[in-house]
Amino acid sequence: MQQEQKQAAALKAAEYIRDNMILGLGTGSTAYYLIRRAGELVKEGMRLKAVATSRSSEKLAEEFGIPVTDINEVPRIDLTIDGVDEIDPDFEAVKGGGGALTREKITAYHSKQVIWIMDHRKQVLKLGAFPLPVEVLPFGWRLLSEKIQSLGYTPILRIENGQAYRTDNGNYILDIHSPSPAGYRKLSGLLRSYPGVVETGYFPAVCSRIIVADSAGVRVLENKKRIVSGDL
Amino acid sequence: MQQEQKQAAALKAAEYIRDNMILGLGTGSTAYYLIRRAGELVKEGMRLKAVATSRSSEKLAEEFGIPVTDINEVPRIDLTIDGVDEIDPDFEAVKGGGGALTREKITAYHSKQVIWIMDHRKQVLKLGAFPLPVEVLPFGWRLLSEKIQSLGYTPILRIENGQAYRTDNGNYILDIHSPSPAGYRKLSGLLRSYPGVVETGYFPAVCSRIIVADSAGVRVLENKKRIVSGDL
Repeated sequence: MQQEQKQAAALKAAEYIRDNMILGLGTGSTAYYLIRRAGELVKEGMRLKAVATSRSSEKLAEEFGIPVTDINEVPRIDLTIDGVDEIDPDFEAVKGGGGALTREKITAYHSKQVIWIMDHRKQVLKLGAFPLPVEVLPFGWRLLSEKIQSLGYTPILRIENGQAYRTDNGNYILDIHSPSPAGYRKLSGLLRSYPGVVETGYFPAVCSRIIVADSAGVRVLENKKRIVSGDL
Repeated sequence: MQQEQKQAAALKAAEYIRDNMILGLGTGSTAYYLIRRAGELVKEGMRLKAVATSRSSEKLAEEFGIPVTDINEVPRIDLTIDGVDEIDPDFEAVKGGGGALTREKITAYHSKQVIWIMDHRKQVLKLGAFPLPVEVLPFGWRLLSEKIQSLGYTPILRIENGQAYRTDNGNYILDIHSPSPAGYRKLSGLLRSYPGVVETGYFPAVCSRIIVADSAGVRVLENKKRIVSGDL
């Protein structure tokens, strides 16, 4: 059921793909369906190029026959389609459960259009059910983690196969529990000011629109107040 | 002459080293003299441990017989002694000509005391003679650089031996020319907000004191308004 909804949102998002676009491909289970659909569009004759927000999405894209280019080789990104972990009514989101938060954020900020796709359970009134993932440099991560702890949070080093998880950028992830009552936006800004913090999984409203699927179908919600790169 | 002054500042700074300290070792030509002096102190029987802000300083420390520990293995850093590229009367500095800016900043922020040592020519009324070094992730650096350019700056990818220079963290450096008339503090804050920017070489007043050498001798200037980690 949930898989069908993810797929429905992805198929709707694919309708925004045009010939000759440079696509940004998200990471995760919802993005999977989008990548598969984009592969079909290529087979049907559409000329697409893609940049991927993770090695896993790059691999998927290649399997589905989409030409993948290094992000440093493209002049622009026309449209990025990606999933979210949770999103609030102001289009602010938490992403990074899959560990690709930094590349996802870089890709989104440099894209002309961004569409986030999801099943309806990702919509929340207030962010906070998910811990906030924070990508940190391995150098000094422990003192940084103690510092964050001294502020009242509970940072947990992400572990995979018994070892510290490494992002595609070679860094670690701290998942921060007990989020600030002041909210993720403030916490993210604070964390971003610490040396050693590369990026957080808090995404301001950088999407152009979201596509939400539930049992009744899909809805497209336009974000009228998109934060674009130039506003930074 | 300049070398003698660097050495004089380093020798003065070494007077602040106490038995059983965990030292943060800076990077660069002035830090070299400090590391050499710390090695003498170890030979004289002082029990010191060091964490290094770069592989080159780590290597130097080992050559001079100082026990070096991984920064993630120490409970604290007592005193970090490092150089600067330029510094203004408010103790704000630009560092990172040597490429170690991020590890230098991480180490400084986690140190109980920080001493910056220099010859007097590093003192300026206003920062800006040096380009601002910015450590960036390789992923997406080109679109980021174009973005910075569109704001009126001139970012230059640092090259070494014909290839993009890699920091000890595996990242690139953009040296940003034509600094903002508004100053490095504001520019650094703006850049820090872009995904893909790991750190900048603008250092707020995180030093406890500076030691400046000129032909007349050395002066110690205390920073009464030190920004410590807890103030972030």
